[in-house]
Amino acid sequence: MASNSFGNLFRMTTWGESHGSAIGLVIDGCPAGLTVTSEEINHALLMRSPGRTPWTSPRKEKDTIEILSGMLNGKTTGAPISLLIKNSDAKSSHYESTKHLLRPGHANYTYLQKYHCFDYRGGGRSSARETACRVAAGVFAEKFLQHYQITCLAFLKAVGKVSLPSEQYTPEDIINSPIFCPNPAVELLMCQEIESCQVAGDSIGGIVEAHAYHLPAGLGDPVYEKLEANLAKAMLSIPASKGFEIGSGFEAAKMRGSEHNDTFIHEGVTSTNYAGGVLGGISTGMPLELRVAFKPTSSIQKAQKTLDLHGNPQTIELPKGSRHDPCVAIRAVPVVKAMLALSLADAVLSQRLALVQESLACK
Amino acid sequence: MASNSFGNLFRMTTWGESHGSAIGLVIDGCPAGLTVTSEEINHALLMRSPGRTPWTSPRKEKDTIEILSGMLNGKTTGAPISLLIKNSDAKSSHYESTKHLLRPGHANYTYLQKYHCFDYRGGGRSSARETACRVAAGVFAEKFLQHYQITCLAFLKAVGKVSLPSEQYTPEDIINSPIFCPNPAVELLMCQEIESCQVAGDSIGGIVEAHAYHLPAGLGDPVYEKLEANLAKAMLSIPASKGFEIGSGFEAAKMRGSEHNDTFIHEGVTSTNYAGGVLGGISTGMPLELRVAFKPTSSIQKAQKTLDLHGNPQTIELPKGSRHDPCVAIRAVPVVKAMLALSLADAVLSQRLALVQESLACK
Amino acid sequence: MASNSFGNLFRMTTWGESHGSAIGLVIDGCPAGLTVTSEEINHALLMRSPGRTPWTSPRKEKDTIEILSGMLNGKTTGAPISLLIKNSDAKSSHYESTKHLLRPGHANYTYLQKYHCFDYRGGGRSSARETACRVAAGVFAEKFLQHYQITCLAFLKAVGKVSLPSEQYTPEDIINSPIFCPNPAVELLMCQEIESCQVAGDSIGGIVEAHAYHLPAGLGDPVYEKLEANLAKAMLSIPASKGFEIGSGFEAAKMRGSEHNDTFIHEGVTSTNYAGGVLGGISTGMPLELRVAFKPTSSIQKAQKTLDLHGNPQTIELPKGSRHDPCVAIRAVPVVKAMLALSLADAVLSQRLALVQESLACK
Amino acid sequence: MASNSFGNLFRMTTWGESHGSAIGLVIDGCPAGLTVTSEEINHALLMRSPGRTPWTSPRKEKDTIEILSGMLNGKTTGAPISLLIKNSDAKSSHYESTKHLLRPGHANYTYLQKYHCFDYRGGGRSSARETACRVAAGVFAEKFLQHYQITCLAFLKAVGKVSLPSEQYTPEDIINSPIFCPNPAVELLMCQEIESCQVAGDSIGGIVEAHAYHLPAGLGDPVYEKLEANLAKAMLSIPASKGFEIGSGFEAAKMRGSEHNDTFIHEGVTSTNYAGGVLGGISTGMPLELRVAFKPTSSIQKAQKTLDLHGNPQTIELPKGSRHDPCVAIRAVPVVKAMLALSLADAVLSQRLALVQESLACK
Repeated sequence: MASNSFGNLFRMTTWGESHGSAIGLVIDGCPAGLTVTSEEINHALLMRSPGRTPWTSPRKEKDTIEILSGMLNGKTTGAPISLLIKNSDAKSSHYESTKHLLRPGHANYTYLQKYHCFDYRGGGRSSARETACRVAAGVFAEKFLQHYQITCLAFLKAVGKVSLPSEQYTPEDIINSPIFCPNPAVELLMCQEIESCQVAGDSIGGIVEAHAYHLPAGLGDPVYEKLEANLAKAMLSIPASKGFEIGSGFEAAKMRGSEHNDTFIHEGVTSTNYAGGVLGGISTGMPLELRVAFKPTSSIQKAQKTLDLHGNPQTIELPKGSRHDPCVAIRAVPVVKAMLALSLADAVLSQRLALVQESLACK
Repeated sequence: MASNSFGNLFRMTTWGESHGSAIGLVIDGCPAGLTVTSEEINHALLMRSPGRTPWTSPRKEKDTIEILSGMLNGKTTGAPISLLIKNSDAKSSHYESTKHLLRPGHANYTYLQKYHCFDYRGGGRSSARETACRVAAGVFAEKFLQHYQITCLAFLKAVGKVSLPSEQYTPEDIINSPIFCPNPAVELLMCQEIESCQVAGDSIGGIVEAHAYHLPAGLGDPVYEKLEANLAKAMLSIPASKGFEIGSGFEAAKMRGSEHNDTFIHEGVTSTNYAGGVLGGISTGMPLELRVAFKPTSSIQKAQKTLDLHGNPQTIELPKGSRHDPCVAIRAVPVVKAMLALSLADAVLSQRLALVQESLACK
Repeated sequence: MASNSFGNLFRMTTWGESHGSAIGLVIDGCPAGLTVTSEEINHALLMRSPGRTPWTSPRKEKDTIEILSGMLNGKTTGAPISLLIKNSDAKSSHYESTKHLLRPGHANYTYLQKYHCFDYRGGGRSSARETACRVAAGVFAEKFLQHYQITCLAFLKAVGKVSLPSEQYTPEDIINSPIFCPNPAVELLMCQEIESCQVAGDSIGGIVEAHAYHLPAGLGDPVYEKLEANLAKAMLSIPASKGFEIGSGFEAAKMRGSEHNDTFIHEGVTSTNYAGGVLGGISTGMPLELRVAFKPTSSIQKAQKTLDLHGNPQTIELPKGSRHDPCVAIRAVPVVKAMLALSLADAVLSQRLALVQESLACK
Repeated sequence: MASNSFGNLFRMTTWGESHGSAIGLVIDGCPAGLTVTSEEINHALLMRSPGRTPWTSPRKEKDTIEILSGMLNGKTTGAPISLLIKNSDAKSSHYESTKHLLRPGHANYTYLQKYHCFDYRGGGRSSARETACRVAAGVFAEKFLQHYQITCLAFLKAVGKVSLPSEQYTPEDIINSPIFCPNPAVELLMCQEIESCQVAGDSIGGIVEAHAYHLPAGLGDPVYEKLEANLAKAMLSIPASKGFEIGSGFEAAKMRGSEHNDTFIHEGVTSTNYAGGVLGGISTGMPLELRVAFKPTSSIQKAQKTLDLHGNPQTIELPKGSRHDPCVAIRAVPVVKAMLALSLADAVLSQRLALVQESLACK
């Protein structure tokens, strides 16, 4: 099935394999009149790129965007926006030694089962390289949201057992951290945790938290297009994600109603925000708060038992110099932010339809 | 936006307000040839109905299905299936006393913001009564899945701080418990927790876990239609849900790759199942395992501070005899199972398209 | 595939077989605040119903609508609108004698090939009875369009070789004619043509023309959601339709550019309207003008050669008293109007999205 | 709205402006295992390109395809296929002199009304240059159809009043004609008609006919996804198209049922084919036959009266050397064929879903 598109009204379609000549995307439904520059997109891509810090993959993806359509004189025209990123540092040879094996935690087994053929070079469409396209699209979505004063941010909430306390953080706090952890003391602990994994040839999981501010009340549609339902889908479509929470999330299961019910103190303002900014699938106007759990990177240096494609037991050991992230959650931070912005852009457009009735005789 | 439909290929559209004359649904895309009886649907509805146990709402919803189309001689014909459930015990008068108030934790504020008009009678489309339609549709989905030997089950995993250990449970274990908790000792603790809430005029959250067995490998589509992405959307569309996990879920954040990577021991069989039955968005053939967090019921007997529709501080106190569930997670169990079955039925149909290439020259 | 829905944003889903207990539909995406009465819908249904004139089927379908959801105090609420029409005069027995035969011009052969099972009673979902649902939905669409001053009309343009000249007609002219032909002299000729077919046990084709007035410029979306593309799909989805034209239609093939190019004389006003109200898929503000060709009714009294389900030559002769329309185009008139209104309602909603950029910095 | 995609399951999204750096498309849902070469696509593009004959625009579009993703070792992989065509001969300067005018018959007025900004360079997304993308996508669709033995062809049926008689034509007959008219005598008359328009600085309309052979019975879905409904939408999405017919088309309006009903003589074979290969929206197995009417090219050399953007009367006269087609129907022939193939590919995939029930207990 056509499964490479995201969004109903603000819609992107991504294409490209991690080891092909290029990857790219088309955004259809982006409103006209948005000012976006290549530099802004390249900067966003840089935030996601590997090789930027000692705690991420040393792979070099110096991603440079080419804007092929949909813009005139620096502004979007309403026509589909085609963006292209050339692949430069793809080393398919790294995959030669393991192409006959089932890679634990990887999609090669399921792709083989589904398609009966497999592009072994770096995972094809299952590669996290695809997420660069999401980040590029997210820049347009954020620009659109700015016209409504809506802002998004995302940060690293946890690495292994090291977790960040709930405080207010600014975008600057986040961007100043190479691992997107806005609290320097916690950042240090996280980096130590990651380094201990690197030394052991192992990897570690993590949690990304994202917020959106200044949402109007009313975003999201009842029943099956609830704002949190679409956000959950957006986040679980990110490679390596295993869970999604909004507001209180799984903690809600332990709470009583008298505690969990956020008390209205002014219109649209509640004393607490266990709801996480949504009630009945529709934004309340309070900050949107969500978290996404990421599993530890599946590719590790440590030798692992597995099977080959014929079902025989084998040991898989990645070649020296394989360039994997010790903690995918770090580079997932800008991806989570992009998916949040894309989901909200779609909801803002959808809300235009609900507003139709303002001009009708509704009372 | 048209937001009352779920599924791409096996698609249901639900309609009806909790306090209107009826609710119902249309299933479009259900294959022909499935044998389904009204009795089976009524039995499934009974599992979700209130008034069945001391630990759920005493409201009486003796739901009886009418099948209006799409079946001939007891079998589906491939034409759209129209199902109708008459509303019988709707007491709108219960809502009169609070119709001028913002109800904490409820959707009336957000619906008002979005639509500028509100059907105060029991929440309109935001009412959990809509989930009866999901349960009815789920019966057809489960029947379809049976042709592929796929089975689904769901149970109550946690209530407040009482949690069920991970063991193997049978459908009988579950159905024998009035609160869908397959372990009698844990069930007792859960019931005590619920009763203590009832006594206090309060409510409590909970977690529902669901499994699917005998899935073929290959269900789910890459990138944006990943199986877990669609499941997450399905589950977060259920009223009161706040979180979703597949497999290891949020625990994954604390794990190392060498521990989390499930080791293949036979084709399609792994020693552990932290993946929860999916890799790269596609089913592995291992059991699908997911959990959904539910917040405590928003409607509580306890007096709460709030605002009226003009922004003035008020106290909300539900009239004696208001009939609310102390723990929505209990009655959410059959709803989670239905949404799981519906999501899988859609994925099975979608997989028909991937199978096209078997007849082509793919190697 | 789920194929019983029409429209993207103003979306209806229809259900029901011609010989089941009821037919009905759900409208999802209809804006709140529209005043619609059962009487209005029943009146629209009456226009489509058989048994109303000597020139249509004597079958009695006294269709009465039941509104099951989506309205409160006489107004739409924005929630899905569920409508139900009970079947009263279904005589399945009429179909018993021909159930083993391939019916010339009918869908029973193709349904059998597709589904390997067939609801022989009156055609199941292929029956034109389904179009009653379209007419009911059309009432809501027309009410929505009225808020934008957009009006729709449809009339009988041709029966066999009798054709109506191009003049201005009012809704009253049309409604005063039992066959929706606004010119009494032409109406007489059409009725004579139809009667001569009735006498011969035969049927005759026809053309329906439809106009929409007071459209704003800007409706319709570029490339694949052009206004005329969606109208063409809408019209070719009506049973027995064989062709669609907008503006000059097939006559355009014979014209020169200097003649066909409509000259602008004021903003949005052209001296001629060969374009039929659209340029580049988007409305110009001139009247929308389209025509739909209908084949002669497939069910005729005359004996016809055919095959039975085993491939043996047979003669098919409908039982005396079979109640078929001599000219389906007559009763197609309100259906064409409904599909026009539904298509335009969808386009008006979609145009809300294009208008987003008005608030952005587009110049 | 996102309106640049075509197809549900075999889905293409096109992008690019006629005077930008490139145009292109993404095909999502194309099955794996299809062998397609760049040469085949380039050859198909050549058939559509201007400058190939004296009777088409002398503009040079030496289109060369770049395949950026979705193929490995010459075969499709099931991943999205990204195709890019660089623009080489775009002369925006030609449009400078008329950029302040409403161009009769053109989309610039409606685009201005809709978007309040306009890419005057050659029409932006309204340009027929976009159809090159359709032709490229059509090659993949035709390859897919070949696996089912389904073949498509299209030819020039009429130019002005010159019309081709109904006979059997081979693909070779068509390809041998520079104007895709398989009958040399008629071709000569058509070319004379076109030349007389060229001399007069004028243009002429035409009709394209398309056939598909060896369709299995069963393609197309009931009610709103009828095969002819989707074909009608496909064809009316082509720039300059004004009408669509299937089988008897508008002639059906003049016929009697006893004549129009095609008599079954063997299973799936009828003596005539007035149905045009479909009954009830589903293919019969007889050849699919359709026609599309095209208006005369809107851009003509002759001076025309119009308005400027401020509403003042002006005369528009294209600069000497403007390079327009005298008859757009010629170059529309390969576009119609591509849209036919794309529609059928989608229907074949959709039919996979109906086939599900073969394995169920349907009788």
